[in-house]
Amino acid sequence: MTTPIRIAETGPRRLRGFIAAMTRLVEEAGEDEARILEQGRHLLADLVAVDDWLPEAYAQPHPVHYRQYLLHCDPLERFSLVSFVWGPGQRTPIHDHTVWGLIGVLRGAEEAELFTPDGLPHPAGRERLEAGMVDAVSPRIGDIHRVSNAYDDRVSISIHVYGANIGAVSRHVFDAASGAPKGFVSGYANDSLPNCWQG
Amino acid sequence: MTTPIRIAETGPRRLRGFIAAMTRLVEEAGEDEARILEQGRHLLADLVAVDDWLPEAYAQPHPVHYRQYLLHCDPLERFSLVSFVWGPGQRTPIHDHTVWGLIGVLRGAEEAELFTPDGLPHPAGRERLEAGMVDAVSPRIGDIHRVSNAYDDRVSISIHVYGANIGAVSRHVFDAASGAPKGFVSGYANDSLPNCWQG
Ligand SMILES: [Fe+3]
Ligand SMILES: [Fe+3]
Ligand SMILES: [Mg+2]
Repeated sequence: MTTPIRIAETGPRRLRGFIAAMTRLVEEAGEDEARILEQGRHLLADLVAVDDWLPEAYAQPHPVHYRQYLLHCDPLERFSLVSFVWGPGQRTPIHDHTVWGLIGVLRGAEEAELFTPDGLPHPAGRERLEAGMVDAVSPRIGDIHRVSNAYDDRVSISIHVYGANIGAVSRHVFDAASGAPKGFVSGYANDSLPNCWQG
Repeated sequence: MTTPIRIAETGPRRLRGFIAAMTRLVEEAGEDEARILEQGRHLLADLVAVDDWLPEAYAQPHPVHYRQYLLHCDPLERFSLVSFVWGPGQRTPIHDHTVWGLIGVLRGAEEAELFTPDGLPHPAGRERLEAGMVDAVSPRIGDIHRVSNAYDDRVSISIHVYGANIGAVSRHVFDAASGAPKGFVSGYANDSLPNCWQG
């Protein structure tokens, strides 16, 4: 039996509390992905429970496409924390992750369409995540999806945690018509990270 | 006998290599300060050996006083990495650290005047550090100094590593005439950290 880890910090220090707690979790859990997803889900739920900590610079949409801002990378690249900012109606291509991921909605809502390892529509279909909700992906439990802002008229923001420095991972996008995969490395939109370590 | 740890990365990725290696060192060394200072000295020497990795935003002097930019804080606050930027002729007050520290000069040169725990001039006197050199402080080996840009006509930059989130540590400045201590918390000049995690 495990005691869910909780974030002790509140307000602007919530991010710092998440980073510390998630670091302890990956140190303790090692390769135990099921434990990371189970306990990490609680941590991410705490992080997105209140929308009072994300600096404005990491909440800016792009007029044409969704944006992916790195908020923190574990120094040993065991996990990364990313802010996804969806302009009205924006969506990702069909893509995989190759590592575990946790998805928490901070603002607005998002819709995910699920696909099989062949890049074809998955029988499980479609999921909608509202603000405060958390979902998980991984090659073990289902890794391929296309994610959209659930709104056509406003910005949505989701906060993701991945089991690697996700912006540097070689993974795939899939052609929507044929399911054909193509390699991609996402990178990040930002050259600066939030400094959440002020006294 | 210990094998000195070296940074494998070069160029703009040098910072990332330092952060990873220093993280491994504090994880392995725990409370063994002597080991951290000995091996950390090699890591910091590698980091300041070539001046090709510090982003411009963290190299900007202030017209009136020296500046302290956080470059990285260990998620568990076991160490922090700071860029000190000295305008021409600028210097710190007499101050302590309360934790171990490593000081490496990246650009220019700095002079340190040493003081006793009473805030009085130390018989060991004065040290000058040129670019590429590394020095150490700690309550165990001598913790109180006043540091100056060795140049009156140009910027110097030194890169410091401390055994805590130094900007949040309660420590002391000492009156130059009387040696009387006064509490201070330094904070940091910057709200953003360099993102050294791009693919
Ligand atoms: Fe995804
Ligand atoms: Fe100092
Ligand atoms: Mg010395």
